[in-house]
Amino acid sequence: MFFQIIEILGTFAFSISGVLVALEKRMDAFGVLIIAFVTSVGGGTLRDVLIGQTPVTWMENMIYVYVIIVATIFSIIFRKRLNYLRTSLFLFDTIGIGLYTVVGIEKGLFMGLHPIICIALGTITACFGGVIRDILCNEIPVIFRKEVYATACILGGFTYFLLRKLPIDNNIVFIISGLVVIIVRLIAVKFKISLPSLYKNVV
Amino acid sequence: MFFQIIEILGTFAFSISGVLVALEKRMDAFGVLIIAFVTSVGGGTLRDVLIGQTPVTWMENMIYVYVIIVATIFSIIFRKRLNYLRTSLFLFDTIGIGLYTVVGIEKGLFMGLHPIICIALGTITACFGGVIRDILCNEIPVIFRKEVYATACILGGFTYFLLRKLPIDNNIVFIISGLVVIIVRLIAVKFKISLPSLYKNVV
Amino acid sequence: MFFQIIEILGTFAFSISGVLVALEKRMDAFGVLIIAFVTSVGGGTLRDVLIGQTPVTWMENMIYVYVIIVATIFSIIFRKRLNYLRTSLFLFDTIGIGLYTVVGIEKGLFMGLHPIICIALGTITACFGGVIRDILCNEIPVIFRKEVYATACILGGFTYFLLRKLPIDNNIVFIISGLVVIIVRLIAVKFKISLPSLYKNVV
Repeated sequence: MFFQIIEILGTFAFSISGVLVALEKRMDAFGVLIIAFVTSVGGGTLRDVLIGQTPVTWMENMIYVYVIIVATIFSIIFRKRLNYLRTSLFLFDTIGIGLYTVVGIEKGLFMGLHPIICIALGTITACFGGVIRDILCNEIPVIFRKEVYATACILGGFTYFLLRKLPIDNNIVFIISGLVVIIVRLIAVKFKISLPSLYKNVV
Repeated sequence: MFFQIIEILGTFAFSISGVLVALEKRMDAFGVLIIAFVTSVGGGTLRDVLIGQTPVTWMENMIYVYVIIVATIFSIIFRKRLNYLRTSLFLFDTIGIGLYTVVGIEKGLFMGLHPIICIALGTITACFGGVIRDILCNEIPVIFRKEVYATACILGGFTYFLLRKLPIDNNIVFIISGLVVIIVRLIAVKFKISLPSLYKNVV
Repeated sequence: MFFQIIEILGTFAFSISGVLVALEKRMDAFGVLIIAFVTSVGGGTLRDVLIGQTPVTWMENMIYVYVIIVATIFSIIFRKRLNYLRTSLFLFDTIGIGLYTVVGIEKGLFMGLHPIICIALGTITACFGGVIRDILCNEIPVIFRKEVYATACILGGFTYFLLRKLPIDNNIVFIISGLVVIIVRLIAVKFKISLPSLYKNVV
């Protein structure tokens, strides 16, 4: 129940981030909806396809579809005022990637995959919705250039597998790892930390 | 037999639309063939991957491959004269999306999925070949910006599920829903109707 | 064992080619790693998803992940001197596509697919890592425009099915077909042969 609420908030925030990018690209209502959709569930969809868990999650559980449609309509109506919500949206989004990361890891574990692959799956779940959004909008994915997004997911993933070796309850492992993702991202954004572009050093 | 002919005409028209875009992007013969291929069967392929129906359709039924190769060779040879065929191609293309939409819906039903998901699958089947084509050609997908393509598919999908509740023969439901897609698209193109871009209202 | 070594060399060369493109696009370390990854295993991943062999290969065999990580670190450290390795990298890359092509064909045969589909799968395995790399880097895929890459794979594929009808040992068929891919590519690059762009003739 608690996790369900977090998931809904995360999906909501992801959808709105998609809507904002789509509006900037002058898309029509259909384009906006698709970009919202892809931003929210694209990462989980890619994960499901790669591990062969089909039909993919959002086809079997309608909650995603409903949340995305509501979020899209909401953010189209209030599009001029979404700036006021910037902080809340950023928080939901960050909580969302924390949750998505751990959900992705556990799907990998369930399939009996290697810890490194599980961490990759967690990162894909949390980050690749944004990657697909950027590709559809004809941009180089932002997380490949300047966001600490993925690094936060990877650190959270390592935390997960470290804690799992200790005699700790699974739910606690889940929550702490998710919190690591969230805290790393908050710190990175707060202090404007980003991975260096390696280009300058080439020339 | 009747549907098979429609499907071949649709695949033919989709392929040619792919060839035309690829030629404009100055691709070589291999690039042109791939874009023709992706435009024709990309939507159905994405659908099959998402629902887990693999190997995907065109791998098990060679008719698509043959039609696409013939259409590509044909349209490369007659590329200077394809303008004369513009109306026929537009008609085949429109009939094709009508058919593809209903085929996609029925695949979803066969998997026991929710009607909204089935409509999404129909729309994906009909529209996402063009989306993948545009991504490979480094463009923002045209249907996200100004085409009523997808709206026609969605309306056809709703028609399908409305009619299905009535005591009507399945083939009739199939044909009427497909016709709705076709007619909506024809009307939209005739009267230059498109979904408004939401951008202007933002600034 | 012999093939394993070739596969590692090919994966290594593909990764470095990804790193080079990503550095030019000013990506950060995470982006560079992802592009290296996608360039190496993207083709095989797409093949596995299309035929339904999931979880995809690199999730079940960690050797790819390790080789890609080592290649990425190696090429980031030595990025200013990779020019000296240009010839070796080109050779590894070419040997890699030879091997990948035949591996893809045999996966298709194993699934009982039509020879043309098998050749398509071989070509996808060898070429589509580069296609996904280019899409993520917001470029029109280079092999659609001027490389003889794919043509070499297709010719190797036809060789495979021609030889298979003769009373020849399977390993020999494998090696000769791979060599055809390699030799066609070497000749094409040596003599600057490429498929003509069809554009000029349109206008």
